[in-house]
Amino acid sequence: MKILSLFKPIDRELEVVEEKLRQAADAEHAQLAEVLRYLLDSGGKRIRPAVVILASKFHEHDVSKVLPLAAAVEMLHTATLVHDDLLDGSLLRRGNATLNAKLSAGAVILVGDYLFARAADLAAATESVPVVSIFSKTLMTICRGEITHAFDEDGWRRTKEGYFHSTYSKTASLFAASAESGALLSGAGSATVRSLRDYGCNLGMAFQIVDDILDFVGDEDEMGKPIGSDLRQGTVTLPLLLYFDEHPKHDLLSAVFEEREGREERIQSLVDLVRDSPAIESAREEARRFTMEAKEALRDLSANQYRQVMLDLADYLLERRR
Amino acid sequence: MKILSLFKPIDRELEVVEEKLRQAADAEHAQLAEVLRYLLDSGGKRIRPAVVILASKFHEHDVSKVLPLAAAVEMLHTATLVHDDLLDGSLLRRGNATLNAKLSAGAVILVGDYLFARAADLAAATESVPVVSIFSKTLMTICRGEITHAFDEDGWRRTKEGYFHSTYSKTASLFAASAESGALLSGAGSATVRSLRDYGCNLGMAFQIVDDILDFVGDEDEMGKPIGSDLRQGTVTLPLLLYFDEHPKHDLLSAVFEEREGREERIQSLVDLVRDSPAIESAREEARRFTMEAKEALRDLSANQYRQVMLDLADYLLERRR
Repeated sequence: MKILSLFKPIDRELEVVEEKLRQAADAEHAQLAEVLRYLLDSGGKRIRPAVVILASKFHEHDVSKVLPLAAAVEMLHTATLVHDDLLDGSLLRRGNATLNAKLSAGAVILVGDYLFARAADLAAATESVPVVSIFSKTLMTICRGEITHAFDEDGWRRTKEGYFHSTYSKTASLFAASAESGALLSGAGSATVRSLRDYGCNLGMAFQIVDDILDFVGDEDEMGKPIGSDLRQGTVTLPLLLYFDEHPKHDLLSAVFEEREGREERIQSLVDLVRDSPAIESAREEARRFTMEAKEALRDLSANQYRQVMLDLADYLLERRR
Repeated sequence: MKILSLFKPIDRELEVVEEKLRQAADAEHAQLAEVLRYLLDSGGKRIRPAVVILASKFHEHDVSKVLPLAAAVEMLHTATLVHDDLLDGSLLRRGNATLNAKLSAGAVILVGDYLFARAADLAAATESVPVVSIFSKTLMTICRGEITHAFDEDGWRRTKEGYFHSTYSKTASLFAASAESGALLSGAGSATVRSLRDYGCNLGMAFQIVDDILDFVGDEDEMGKPIGSDLRQGTVTLPLLLYFDEHPKHDLLSAVFEEREGREERIQSLVDLVRDSPAIESAREEARRFTMEAKEALRDLSANQYRQVMLDLADYLLERRR
């Protein structure tokens, strides 16, 4: 785990979070422990735990409750990745083999379930009923989003509204919950809690849009996974939706949703078309808009060093290359 | 939902639990709601919610917290069944098609995840941190048991110790947690809470042993699933372990763990051998022992009508035919 340099002011806290995650793994049966360590060491940048910790810095607080929550949020995030990768059949994430490249589908399901349970247990360690409730509702939102996506089979009929809704469910809801719960645990007042939740939500939206842009323009080596993964899995994201605004009913798209010969070549052509189009800049504009909203949400908070980290984090996530 | 006649004294509460489960389903996206209704109407006997409610009857209590917990426990149980059936490839449960006979594996994983989230949310509605903590720790125990089973591939080398351990993780832990949490929410003292937990744990052990016996001697029509399912899935249970005490190294067993021709016939022969052996009566003796322990645990509680239901429930579960 290399902690991002911008997280310097909270590096001690982030190390305790690492320790908590490691302890959770070590407490287990040897083979399960090995799998958990592998997952937790797989290069996550610990952005969500950092958001929890940063959001708790605007009021006096008992840090002993904030750090289990930070670990819980990372654990929940890891659980969703484990099941997601299984659903998508992904073999690589952040340059590492996913669990489904290593274990049977059954074992992957169970490991994901176990991580959900561990996450819930860490959330309970906050001893805060409102936080536990936010936590379970966020997990419901995440699952509901995935299910809607899986059942609706909207596929190529996806609208921008559908995209933004799903981006909230899948990513922004957990960022929002991280910030809100960190603030609540610090004992901050309701206006501060609302501002911080707002920051988290907008940060998460921008984060996911940038992710979706990188799936078109990123460098495969830097990303640690193939470009065009979303499209290959039949998921239409913002850059493509914006491309369609200018090129309606592109016949390459329907080909992506059919398992016929030459599908991979058609996906590659479509990725190239989008990458070289103004749709990328339009998508960046959307990400920039959410980033500005995130920063704007912090306007009335004390101008301490943690607020500065939160502002810098928003810029960093917008500009990141992987 | 037909409520068991012995639950008459708590039928009003059980109806509220049904209502809560129905509401959880109705609040959802049409297709998800349909799946949830199907699952929740699939003939569960609501034994775990009944244990929660009954265990709350030995002290003054605020019923508004007990009923969400009763619903949470049933929801969690349903979630584990959904993922279990997927892992086992089971197509039938209680005479109904399982979800994996109806949906893609991906959709089944997500529905299970969603049910875990809903269960956690209902548990949070108790507003009791200790109860939420028991709840998440129980889910960890259940997952850990399943993972140990999946990773160890102990298969035919399984010992009685391994069997009892796994029976606790898989079944008794949730019965124990149901009784303990019901008691805690009623504000009962620690001795009462311990006694009720003890009741739940022993009841759950007996329940699972009877289940495992029925998988050899049950009537397929009454059971709503094929006989010999455990063995077919490579799971060695108590009747078979007791049979081995008398017939060591039976060569039919290794055949069960190999995918070679005639496997189904060999499974059938082994099921017949066990069914007609004294191992069944020895397994019943074990179930009877746990049932007695369960009843014994209630010794010092007030002799109210709910204690009588709990005693009757223990006998009913021991004698049941499906």
